[in-house]
Amino acid sequence: MTDAPDPTVGEIGEHRILREIFAALDGSSRAIVGPGDDAAVLAAPGGRVVLTTDTLVQGPDFRLAWSGPSDLGWKSAAVNLADVAAMGARPVALLVALAMPADTRLSFVGALASGLRAACDTLAPGCAVEGGDLTISPTLTIAVTAVGVLDGVDPVLRSGARPGDVVALAGRAGRAAAGLELLFSRFRDAAGEAVAVARGTLSAAERADLDAQLRPEPPIALGAVAAAAGATAMMDVSDGLALDARRLAAASGVTLALSADALAPDPVGALEGGEDHALLATFPSAAAVPEGFRVLGVVQAPGDDALLVDGVAYTGPGGWDPYRDWDRHTG
Amino acid sequence: MTDAPDPTVGEIGEHRILREIFAALDGSSRAIVGPGDDAAVLAAPGGRVVLTTDTLVQGPDFRLAWSGPSDLGWKSAAVNLADVAAMGARPVALLVALAMPADTRLSFVGALASGLRAACDTLAPGCAVEGGDLTISPTLTIAVTAVGVLDGVDPVLRSGARPGDVVALAGRAGRAAAGLELLFSRFRDAAGEAVAVARGTLSAAERADLDAQLRPEPPIALGAVAAAAGATAMMDVSDGLALDARRLAAASGVTLALSADALAPDPVGALEGGEDHALLATFPSAAAVPEGFRVLGVVQAPGDDALLVDGVAYTGPGGWDPYRDWDRHTG
Repeated sequence: MTDAPDPTVGEIGEHRILREIFAALDGSSRAIVGPGDDAAVLAAPGGRVVLTTDTLVQGPDFRLAWSGPSDLGWKSAAVNLADVAAMGARPVALLVALAMPADTRLSFVGALASGLRAACDTLAPGCAVEGGDLTISPTLTIAVTAVGVLDGVDPVLRSGARPGDVVALAGRAGRAAAGLELLFSRFRDAAGEAVAVARGTLSAAERADLDAQLRPEPPIALGAVAAAAGATAMMDVSDGLALDARRLAAASGVTLALSADALAPDPVGALEGGEDHALLATFPSAAAVPEGFRVLGVVQAPGDDALLVDGVAYTGPGGWDPYRDWDRHTG
Repeated sequence: MTDAPDPTVGEIGEHRILREIFAALDGSSRAIVGPGDDAAVLAAPGGRVVLTTDTLVQGPDFRLAWSGPSDLGWKSAAVNLADVAAMGARPVALLVALAMPADTRLSFVGALASGLRAACDTLAPGCAVEGGDLTISPTLTIAVTAVGVLDGVDPVLRSGARPGDVVALAGRAGRAAAGLELLFSRFRDAAGEAVAVARGTLSAAERADLDAQLRPEPPIALGAVAAAAGATAMMDVSDGLALDARRLAAASGVTLALSADALAPDPVGALEGGEDHALLATFPSAAAVPEGFRVLGVVQAPGDDALLVDGVAYTGPGGWDPYRDWDRHTG
């Protein structure tokens, strides 16, 4: 034990780290049993729960020169909340498995917990961190599991789109990728290493792109809204609209026909940029599309191509595959 | 893409890795929506769910020279199933966030998935892997979230033990630590690096200790049995009986008074060895203790010490703290 004001996690016991985390989360738990026992206990009104997990790893997924601990907490919450929303569910809890190097500062852990909480409070009020796990690892890794409830509606799958449905999107497309491009083009040193972001050198539009990358704000509440409005299919756009639209089309056995105008001002950026975590959904008619979604096109009977843009097969890169692409952008 | 018979995950796309995993899990899903959509959807009969997460990290938690991929899958399932059981719940699903180096072989991933499935089938029939996430990482990391349902009973917390209750244990204590000691003392080279285990050089008892460390078999089903029998408190013994008994005593505001005879033949090993994932529980009377649990002692009104053995305060090491101890046992 040490009384240093900001010790490393390798210098102190698990108990003190938990105290720092619990201070950041204080008062946020809404579980039947929150953090501190062997497991959390949550109410599951309606008798069904939605569960998803997504991990951020230092290197492939983030650089500490670009992302502060609060950003990392925020983003690791947001990307998981989006997957819950994409099922038409309302997020109610996060579990956070945090593996970190022994030289991680206690204040870093506290700021990360604060970022998790801020994302929940902002994007999914009523959702909180209800459990987790702490481990020492050479590689900073944040594995989050998100839990949602359906409030009486049926889950909205990828497979429900039918010819004649309307295709719509809530949230941004292409902004997070523009922010990543900005980081790689403007905030690396001569050796290619990430350097701290000088926000003062950025325009307002560039800052917005950067924020879309570092602290994304997916339209979480619109997931349940879409389900209540009768969405026939829905998914989180994490790997780029083109790739994810093809996935939805394949799962549903249909073709999606989009309009380039609807993707203006940068259709290619919108189709190929990942990590915005917009919600791509189909609805039985234009009248059913709820506020917050914009119409991108229509669902057609299956053809030779799963994705058309202005009537032409879209053959651009399919988007992000962590196994194929992870070192395309390193160093 | 490659047609190599056993490519690395860095050589192939996520789709092919998922195909390997789904092949290992084939037919095991019992979810309303299993793997393949944005999130899993599970039935939560009784309207409550139990959730926990626990991570295994290469280095601090395992060495590949000692643990094969099937062992890792098994253990990462077992330790999480035990936390669900310790709430009195029945495990119904696992979510697995797997972060692995780009040079990990596809066959390794398949064997890990098979190990996860085997642990579920053996320890918690009806439970299956229902979702997950794949990421590239320099450090092999397996973060599992386990989900349980309560089947109408109330969750059993750490805080419910009352003076006069009987203390009982289901499962082993000290065996997994003996197995770890065996690995460190017998299966390292002159430089201290882990080397493959020559099982033929081990006695039957030593092999059992080794299996307790590498493929633990916590008494998962006895968690729900204890809850139904009226257990007043319960927890998973992961960090050693002494430390975890003190935690239960502190949460309940009582003293636990154990008998050394009940911990024979090696009371110190039983008190200080972690990782067996036995279930420590208290019951309102000896008559209430279900088959599979053995009585260790009684609950007393709180005194100066949270844990007594044969009436004397137990002051031995408190057990495993990953922040304090993680490199005590390295290389």
